[in-house]
Amino acid sequence: MTDSHSETLGISAEGVRAAAARLQGKAVRTPLLENEILNQRAGGRILIKPETLQRYGSFKFRGAYNRISQLSDEERRNGVLAWSSGNHAQGVALASKLLGAKATIIMPEDAPAIKAQNVRALGADIITYDRYTEDREDIAAKILRDRDMALAPSFDHPHIVEGQGTLALEVHEDASAMDVSLDAFVICCGGGGLTSGCATILESVSPGTSVWIAEPEGYDEAWASIKAGERLKADVSKPTICDAIATASPGWLTFPIMQRLVRGGVTITEQEVREAMVFAYQHLKLVVEPGGAVALAAILSQKFDAAGKVTAITLSGGNVDPALFAKILQN
Amino acid sequence: MTDSHSETLGISAEGVRAAAARLQGKAVRTPLLENEILNQRAGGRILIKPETLQRYGSFKFRGAYNRISQLSDEERRNGVLAWSSGNHAQGVALASKLLGAKATIIMPEDAPAIKAQNVRALGADIITYDRYTEDREDIAAKILRDRDMALAPSFDHPHIVEGQGTLALEVHEDASAMDVSLDAFVICCGGGGLTSGCATILESVSPGTSVWIAEPEGYDEAWASIKAGERLKADVSKPTICDAIATASPGWLTFPIMQRLVRGGVTITEQEVREAMVFAYQHLKLVVEPGGAVALAAILSQKFDAAGKVTAITLSGGNVDPALFAKILQN
Repeated sequence: MTDSHSETLGISAEGVRAAAARLQGKAVRTPLLENEILNQRAGGRILIKPETLQRYGSFKFRGAYNRISQLSDEERRNGVLAWSSGNHAQGVALASKLLGAKATIIMPEDAPAIKAQNVRALGADIITYDRYTEDREDIAAKILRDRDMALAPSFDHPHIVEGQGTLALEVHEDASAMDVSLDAFVICCGGGGLTSGCATILESVSPGTSVWIAEPEGYDEAWASIKAGERLKADVSKPTICDAIATASPGWLTFPIMQRLVRGGVTITEQEVREAMVFAYQHLKLVVEPGGAVALAAILSQKFDAAGKVTAITLSGGNVDPALFAKILQN
Repeated sequence: MTDSHSETLGISAEGVRAAAARLQGKAVRTPLLENEILNQRAGGRILIKPETLQRYGSFKFRGAYNRISQLSDEERRNGVLAWSSGNHAQGVALASKLLGAKATIIMPEDAPAIKAQNVRALGADIITYDRYTEDREDIAAKILRDRDMALAPSFDHPHIVEGQGTLALEVHEDASAMDVSLDAFVICCGGGGLTSGCATILESVSPGTSVWIAEPEGYDEAWASIKAGERLKADVSKPTICDAIATASPGWLTFPIMQRLVRGGVTITEQEVREAMVFAYQHLKLVVEPGGAVALAAILSQKFDAAGKVTAITLSGGNVDPALFAKILQN
């Protein structure tokens, strides 16, 4: 087994394994769940990785901790800068707190209140911006002109990507313990940090697993970019309930990995996202946020054909404001 | 280790172990979860057993399968009769379907719609009654006068009790694998099937664990009965959102076990139940029904003092109608 391709980008299966060792006892080892009603609907076996049960309700702590734990003492003292719609912000804030770093997070004004509250409660500073008129990378650049801080990008950093990849390593280990091999792995995809990390480790430990991505309508530029062979940009002026994965473009670091390793992509409508959240409520008894429900929606809508296969899916986050959740339940 | 006390009632730790073997590969081995925000609130370590993730969203499948799998072929052909507000009904309907028995369930008219729907979808017949004016045991007696059916009571049967006890055996095993011993175990209590089964196995495998029960206001007759030394009756005319555990009285079979092994009880108000459900939504990302949230409410309200202890709690079910859940989220 060789990791030669991804290694040229500084990302490797070995790096994912090292991240898993760093996260031991720090991240929750989320269980691998199965639900008979979902299996019946799919006509196949669906293994559910509920990162909703991860610390602060999304997989983002994995990458953030893996990044910040590798900073020097001086770098941690100088502080960590990140931008995020919310889940990565919480992951960075928590990892910073645990590791004695001061975190500053650039968040959109319209990020779910629950996410901003949690970030503040963890002791991080928040700088808000208008998602439709301002560029968060410009804001970050201005801050970095004045202060020497370490960046914890939401996907474009090898240590972030390798941290997120630990999710797929756990799924593979738990599936192997059940004597099951994975035909496919469907991942909720925004900028591609989770996808490229998972694809990197799966290439090493389970090369027969076909990696697919699910994206929301209007923000399905990752699969479109893979097909086009170049990074396309979504029109970020469009509103979406899938705030967690409403990224403009796949990352410069994550794109070549996805291009090489992702086998297919599906686009999920808002109605399908809502139906998946209601299904998760009713049958899985799990609270899933819109962006975290697109892989489940891919199965339920049969846009990904899981019939006769063993397919793992990510439920990548569960941070959804109660008013929105209540509204979706009652429609 | 002796099981002499409970054995006089036909219930033993060995019976719980045999039930665990029967349930292997049939019931979901639900995970043992931990949440840092809950631990902080409690000032101790809380191990969460989410039976919301069990088949059909509550622990009830455990006892039902353990009972029905021990019937003879002839008994299964003659059919199984049960009465239940809903969760036990679903457990019996599913176990009957898996084991080739025809189930008939007596359910109150005002049982949550989601529970009745699931029971019908599993192929069971439903007979409805008015919870405030009719006695479900009278209805059952009338049916049994005409037809020879096997009863699957919601708690008063040794095989039901032993099946429910497998929950505590799993908690003990998973805690032991984490090198943790349980100071206390707080259980959502209705008729006492889950409590007496769990207390029986804990007495054998973890005698230092103190068993407590949590009950809703107005239906807190189990702990009152234990204190009084006789089975008291709740006024079942009072409305409650905790439908799953709104039992009139502890069982004749479960009461002596609880009397001997339960160390304390707390009464939970409706407001505390609602707050626990919101906490589970917000921080655990789990959908918990009112009756399944009373043990969590015991921790959050500090009516059970978990400070400095390792305490396991049950989240015993997650079947709650979306309209009620939405209403509770928005209050």
